[in-house]
Amino acid sequence: MKIDHLITSPTLLLDEKICRANIATMAKKAQEHGVQLRPHLKTPQSQEIASWLREYNVQAITTSSLQMANYFMADGWKDITVAFPVNIREMGLINRLASQIQLNLVIENEEAILALKEHLKHSVGIWIKINLGNNRTGLNPDQTDKMQELLKVIKTVPQLKAIGILGHAGQSYYSRGNTAIRQIHDNTLKICHQLKAIFPTLKISIGDTPTVSVATNFSGVDEIRPGNFFFYDLMQYQIGSCTLESIAVAMACPVVAKHPERKEIVVHGGAVHFSKDHLLFDNGTSYYGLVCQRQDKDDSWQLLPTQAYLRGLSQEHGIIAADHDFIQSVEIGSLLYILPIHSCLTANLMKKYLTLDGRTISMMPTLFN
Amino acid sequence: MKIDHLITSPTLLLDEKICRANIATMAKKAQEHGVQLRPHLKTPQSQEIASWLREYNVQAITTSSLQMANYFMADGWKDITVAFPVNIREMGLINRLASQIQLNLVIENEEAILALKEHLKHSVGIWIKINLGNNRTGLNPDQTDKMQELLKVIKTVPQLKAIGILGHAGQSYYSRGNTAIRQIHDNTLKICHQLKAIFPTLKISIGDTPTVSVATNFSGVDEIRPGNFFFYDLMQYQIGSCTLESIAVAMACPVVAKHPERKEIVVHGGAVHFSKDHLLFDNGTSYYGLVCQRQDKDDSWQLLPTQAYLRGLSQEHGIIAADHDFIQSVEIGSLLYILPIHSCLTANLMKKYLTLDGRTISMMPTLFN
Repeated sequence: MKIDHLITSPTLLLDEKICRANIATMAKKAQEHGVQLRPHLKTPQSQEIASWLREYNVQAITTSSLQMANYFMADGWKDITVAFPVNIREMGLINRLASQIQLNLVIENEEAILALKEHLKHSVGIWIKINLGNNRTGLNPDQTDKMQELLKVIKTVPQLKAIGILGHAGQSYYSRGNTAIRQIHDNTLKICHQLKAIFPTLKISIGDTPTVSVATNFSGVDEIRPGNFFFYDLMQYQIGSCTLESIAVAMACPVVAKHPERKEIVVHGGAVHFSKDHLLFDNGTSYYGLVCQRQDKDDSWQLLPTQAYLRGLSQEHGIIAADHDFIQSVEIGSLLYILPIHSCLTANLMKKYLTLDGRTISMMPTLFN
Repeated sequence: MKIDHLITSPTLLLDEKICRANIATMAKKAQEHGVQLRPHLKTPQSQEIASWLREYNVQAITTSSLQMANYFMADGWKDITVAFPVNIREMGLINRLASQIQLNLVIENEEAILALKEHLKHSVGIWIKINLGNNRTGLNPDQTDKMQELLKVIKTVPQLKAIGILGHAGQSYYSRGNTAIRQIHDNTLKICHQLKAIFPTLKISIGDTPTVSVATNFSGVDEIRPGNFFFYDLMQYQIGSCTLESIAVAMACPVVAKHPERKEIVVHGGAVHFSKDHLLFDNGTSYYGLVCQRQDKDDSWQLLPTQAYLRGLSQEHGIIAADHDFIQSVEIGSLLYILPIHSCLTANLMKKYLTLDGRTISMMPTLFN
């Protein structure tokens, strides 16, 4: 590609056009169905990419940590939901954010509310977390008595305002194909209706990229919070929530060795670049990425005519399994383009993007605490 | 612990005493066996931790990338081997490093030598990479004709000086128990002797933490390059290359939710903190870390009387499976200490350490390219 000369080490390429198209598609869908789009920025983790949302009048965003909320607040975002159960050790940062923006927090237990009652100096919005079936966090949908109790406690805290009920049907990541995804979504909608009947003044927010990408009915839903849709990836492709043409990111990795006798190529690009997330082929073999190609900038990533895949990762090494002809065609020092399994984790490791125009887009720096 | 009040979000704790003891043990072993210790700093990635090596007169180090070599060069290290096949797109950085220090590079093909011939402006040392059985990179040990050919080409390049033959028996990571590790090491020694007989003037360097930790014979070996031994981790513990008492790092993670009905605790600490590396219990269940405890700073990490383990990771969430009594004993907002599966990848994500004395130790910043 035209930007190859800019690349010396493993580089995360971003196709800005595809990413902007993914945003446009999701914004249009939200508008058509009358739901608020509050995109989850844990995937791009970039102020610049978030700014592309403003073209669609998106005013509200989601982050996965207070630190990330802080980073986006610095770029002018004024309505941020941190979609992670309140960590009551972080009251300092909660107060700092709440003093400046409309901060919305997620709770699922009384302890968190009482800690907020004691330490909070500014008002925040509260979402009650429910478990939509992925069994990660939240109250079960039938624990409506418990929800009533929490709402009662919330009412005793002047700094808190209950906004609604929030869930994430993350079990969609284990489903494959439209029918399976829609079944999960139908179950979500059923829960939404039941809760709406009991809590008519509360909003309902749902979130995962697979169901939101595939669904055509959002009745009972007030807000959607997809994140991965900015870029999509091979996991979403395998689930069935995107096409290959919607994948906006790929890694460019320099070839450092060839082992035709083992049908392998070694690239610079390892676990510290891709992450160790993997998928399984039908035969049970695991893979960490697929080699792809493209004709030009206005095209999209396409798989090779014969499969070449990342079969193993060390810290810096990537081992590509490929056929003899492909290995012969590749030169030491050339670049291979590889679609990642999980774009959120790959982006989180790479910390910046190179667009196909050769522009660098920065991300949130790593600054824990 | 005494430092708990300093911790608000997921934090990588470093027991400096254990880490220094691990260094002392390895340095003593190298000295006793008359081999040079050239520690691999891909694990700690920290100038301060590397400085602890100087107490044992360690002058030479290994890194996994040129960027990492650059970071350690800035702290005065003057003899650095980058244990990764030369990426010929990085000639600029190779030249910059080679102009200032004794830089040693690893090659396994003629293309890399010819690229160095054309672009290298300063002298570098060259190691020929061999495959000690892990089938990642390198020539097979019986390809001695090919090694002779490469040495011949190296001789035509005035900037290059052949130092020796370098291998990494990384298949040790798939072995369990001393006997299995020793078998791998015995095979390595056999290869070393065969190559020494053919190339008597070349040094031989080997490297993986499991075999180097367990081996008691280094005959035919000139240099060892372990890295993980600085910290060890649960993977090394399962392999059998360390005791629990030798594990120097643990993650401290705030508890954000409890789900006794599912026998689960949710902590702040996810894939962006731990990495997705996992191990399997005997029953085939995978886990991403084990909850541990310690009495005081002068103790070491110990497992709980009844097992509690990290059974799943999302981007920021960690799901702990534990028994009823343990869940009851844990409070929202308290900290759980979790031993990581793979300390190299966890450290790479966390980017800093908190010592048990409350001191922050910095790491190499993420600066690709």
